[in-house]
Amino acid sequence: MPSYTAPTQDMQFLLHEVLDVTASGIPGYDELEPDFTKAVLEEAGKISSEVLEPLNMVGDREGCVLENGVVRTPKGFKEAFDQMRDGGWTALDCDPEYGGQGMPYILNTAVGEMFVSSNMAFNMYQGLTHGAYSAIHAHGTDQQKQTFLPKMVTCEWGGTMNLTEPHCGTDLGMLRTRAEPQPDGTYKITGTKIFISAGDQDLTENVIHLVLARIPGAPDGTKGISLFIVPKIAVNEDGTLGEPNGVSVGKLEEKMGIHGNATCVMNFENATGTLLGQENKGMRAMFTMMNEARLGVGLQGYAQAEAAYQNAVEYARERLQGRAVTGAQNPDGPADPLIVHPDIRRSLMDQKSFVEAARALVFWGANLIDRGHLLGDKDAEGLISLITPVIKGFLSDRGFDMTVQAQQIYGGHGYIEETGMSQFVRDARITMIYEGANGVQALDLVGRKLAQDGGRHVMAFFEMIKDFLKENETNTELKEAFLDPLKQASKDLQAAGMFFMQNGMKNPDAALAGSYDFMHLFGHTILGLMWAKMARAATAALERGTGNADFYKTKLATGRYYMARQLPMTRTHLARIETGADPVMTLSADQF
Amino acid sequence: MPSYTAPTQDMQFLLHEVLDVTASGIPGYDELEPDFTKAVLEEAGKISSEVLEPLNMVGDREGCVLENGVVRTPKGFKEAFDQMRDGGWTALDCDPEYGGQGMPYILNTAVGEMFVSSNMAFNMYQGLTHGAYSAIHAHGTDQQKQTFLPKMVTCEWGGTMNLTEPHCGTDLGMLRTRAEPQPDGTYKITGTKIFISAGDQDLTENVIHLVLARIPGAPDGTKGISLFIVPKIAVNEDGTLGEPNGVSVGKLEEKMGIHGNATCVMNFENATGTLLGQENKGMRAMFTMMNEARLGVGLQGYAQAEAAYQNAVEYARERLQGRAVTGAQNPDGPADPLIVHPDIRRSLMDQKSFVEAARALVFWGANLIDRGHLLGDKDAEGLISLITPVIKGFLSDRGFDMTVQAQQIYGGHGYIEETGMSQFVRDARITMIYEGANGVQALDLVGRKLAQDGGRHVMAFFEMIKDFLKENETNTELKEAFLDPLKQASKDLQAAGMFFMQNGMKNPDAALAGSYDFMHLFGHTILGLMWAKMARAATAALERGTGNADFYKTKLATGRYYMARQLPMTRTHLARIETGADPVMTLSADQF
Repeated sequence: MPSYTAPTQDMQFLLHEVLDVTASGIPGYDELEPDFTKAVLEEAGKISSEVLEPLNMVGDREGCVLENGVVRTPKGFKEAFDQMRDGGWTALDCDPEYGGQGMPYILNTAVGEMFVSSNMAFNMYQGLTHGAYSAIHAHGTDQQKQTFLPKMVTCEWGGTMNLTEPHCGTDLGMLRTRAEPQPDGTYKITGTKIFISAGDQDLTENVIHLVLARIPGAPDGTKGISLFIVPKIAVNEDGTLGEPNGVSVGKLEEKMGIHGNATCVMNFENATGTLLGQENKGMRAMFTMMNEARLGVGLQGYAQAEAAYQNAVEYARERLQGRAVTGAQNPDGPADPLIVHPDIRRSLMDQKSFVEAARALVFWGANLIDRGHLLGDKDAEGLISLITPVIKGFLSDRGFDMTVQAQQIYGGHGYIEETGMSQFVRDARITMIYEGANGVQALDLVGRKLAQDGGRHVMAFFEMIKDFLKENETNTELKEAFLDPLKQASKDLQAAGMFFMQNGMKNPDAALAGSYDFMHLFGHTILGLMWAKMARAATAALERGTGNADFYKTKLATGRYYMARQLPMTRTHLARIETGADPVMTLSADQF
Repeated sequence: MPSYTAPTQDMQFLLHEVLDVTASGIPGYDELEPDFTKAVLEEAGKISSEVLEPLNMVGDREGCVLENGVVRTPKGFKEAFDQMRDGGWTALDCDPEYGGQGMPYILNTAVGEMFVSSNMAFNMYQGLTHGAYSAIHAHGTDQQKQTFLPKMVTCEWGGTMNLTEPHCGTDLGMLRTRAEPQPDGTYKITGTKIFISAGDQDLTENVIHLVLARIPGAPDGTKGISLFIVPKIAVNEDGTLGEPNGVSVGKLEEKMGIHGNATCVMNFENATGTLLGQENKGMRAMFTMMNEARLGVGLQGYAQAEAAYQNAVEYARERLQGRAVTGAQNPDGPADPLIVHPDIRRSLMDQKSFVEAARALVFWGANLIDRGHLLGDKDAEGLISLITPVIKGFLSDRGFDMTVQAQQIYGGHGYIEETGMSQFVRDARITMIYEGANGVQALDLVGRKLAQDGGRHVMAFFEMIKDFLKENETNTELKEAFLDPLKQASKDLQAAGMFFMQNGMKNPDAALAGSYDFMHLFGHTILGLMWAKMARAATAALERGTGNADFYKTKLATGRYYMARQLPMTRTHLARIETGADPVMTLSADQF
């Protein structure tokens, strides 16, 4: 059975040496002193290793069951959920007005990584609730907030997002769920929603569904969609629970992974709901949460890779098989450990160098979100909006690949479910799909985000790299290993953007045919930037002679690996992009 | 539920226009007239679509069950197996002396692709039997052949390979299963083997296990391993079945995929066996089958991709979602089909251009094997030995990736088991692991095959490309789109080989750190060669004006895609290889 150790040292390094959070002037960040964050992270790490991780395989094996219309979660989930709630973990970054602890989002993100690494399916119950909380917090009336938020902050009530219908996922403009206005100002919601994560469960006494639906007479397409709050059980004026609403679980889906989370077909039959936000502005209300939700999925991608990697390293250290080509390393044993073999190390370095940079990127993203929310920094908002599809698409793609690599280290044992390595792969697979399939992320990036605000944000991104290169140009430690490859990657990314500008206007297909490669090209470049920043912090610490020198040296070696062996992918992505539309568009639909 | 259509037209193109089999002068190939192969392929396609494919999901869902020590295969498997046997499909390329049909291996390979695409787990029962048949055929005494082969040709008896033990997979030198010689010339076999595919089943009346074991006093390591024939039920002198042997199934493994195939822990307790081949030469006997077995796994990789691709195309044509960026293509419908979107096409082209070239490679590989076996062509044997790790490792890696891409086309529906797309991914995953994990294939390629016979075979491979480029240099249809990229890829591959020669001698880690990239660099180059050959055949046909012009034009467009968008990967692989040992070897084991 896999084990999990929270990477608190690496998180502390990011918070305090790379991002230097307490010095950033963001309201609330002054509380994030190293001792405080250390204590929080260690406590969260403890519950992750001791409570959540042991339930991860249980969740996978047992799955959820639909009994008499009610979802039963796997054995132990309820007790663990109570523990999370009692420990205040569900309320960490929530508004103190509704019982939250008011911590910055970045701290919630760090803690969330641990929860996701140790038990992704379990953590989704709380994650979805948090998403619904955020939507009500941002768009609800005072009445709605008072009614729902205090119970959602504590996860006494759960929350969900109901978007997808059988005939439409990405293309929500086609959705058919109806919302009939009632004389009392409420609406009767009728329709079927599918793929509803955490759609029902036995962990909370109520479930607050957010449902996209169409009010009769609303405009066609996405401009006629509204968002509704539809509780599973009606909530009385005094906050007590009333009668069951017209909400039922039609079916539990059998999925490739995340078995511990109930993916439901939800039937709404004249269910009473109230409008959240403005009529016909439901898509906009959903989109305000999109950056966080997508950042969260990118996090899931690398968090699964982190968990898989930890176990792969452990196995590679212990499993004896073959001899090092340069001479026995364990001459008294029957064979050397796997970790002596160059190709095993190549795979482990791929994993390690990805995960650490991905973590840096997501922490930075959370930092930008805080900057936007708490400082009203529009540039930060623009930048996170630009890189959100990269975080979601690239980190989930690569995170999945890394779980496959970690599984591969185990050889045949990795294919057997009892080692748990298959579960990491199967669970990670969903991150490439939900919250906007990765092809849609690429489309969002190239078709929308690049040109947003006149291309200001992508220009600012390039400026940021340029400034970084300039600031550090005299740093000989960084020059060859970090700055030069970063410069090359950035050049490739700019060349790709230039190609889109020159060709995409006359033929949009010429840009969209390269959108997926662009997302990956951007991803590698941005992880290159993360590595350069981490390398700068590590060299500075080594110069100062403070802290754990071994940690910084390992950090530098891991970064050098990424720059040398992963960053050259930008060349291939650019070459593909520059082939334009023809290779992709030539065949007719029946020639496939 | 997925469907499957046998790609007979593409197979006919390869057999008759690319490989021109009847003109090749290989004994038996004269029978492979187009009408004959067409009839065989269509018949095999029919049984694949109608009998095997409908059982594929059944096998996945039901799996195998161990009841009172006996394995029960999923519902319908027995009837389908009988049908395969009665149709003579298990005997296609077997020796007529033992009841086989004596067809060339290449025909068996084409037919095998269909069986694997439609039901990989099912086909393994027959595949493993065929492997054991080949070993006994190559190394058995007349007595052994007479006793076992006729029943194995018809699959009245099944066969297995017992190599792996709990503590050793790749490193078979450590194996502990004992074989005690008996006065009557037989041996008593005792030990535990794991991961035994098709280890037991209810499809055949007996199972003939081939077991690697150590005779007391044998040298340490792989030089002291012998191979034994150990039937599940003893076979009397007259060929009738006798008493059960000391062979039992200890456990059925729960796996990520191929649930329809029983992966067994096999316990041998004083089981009676006879030596197959020479004492202490068991590894050698196993290795004689290695090329075929590994080619078969490469085939499984792309055959799963083919099946997944077919369903992805179908879904992309039917699922309506979004509008083409260049204007509605289905203006009367609520949305356009997925296939109008550039990124969906990019993914489908990735899949299609991979599968068709992979098929060409495996058919060519089978052709080389026939050339070696039937003509005694040593050059062909050397070449197939060189490219076998590439076929196994590269095609299974990329085949798996393509099943993931096919699943992705389905969005959320791909993650739900009922569409069957997850099964392709889960089944394909094993091909990267078994028959030598892909890291071991890369090691075999770089550490052993490159230098084999003084590097003669890799030189011959480069010569072959050079000759091809020269022969076709005046072909303007091929020049820019096919020959130039192939030349560049071949240059990259040579540069990588040169790097190994210059650095690997003083530091083997410098070569082995790049072995995985080299395997992929080789794979892309060889698929580039396959595409160039197919393009030549297609342009020739278009010039002649014979056949289906649409087929040839599609072929050319698909090839141009691969050359333009996949082949540039060689640059990145070379760049990685040239970073040498340092990035990979720097960290100590505890710094990971």
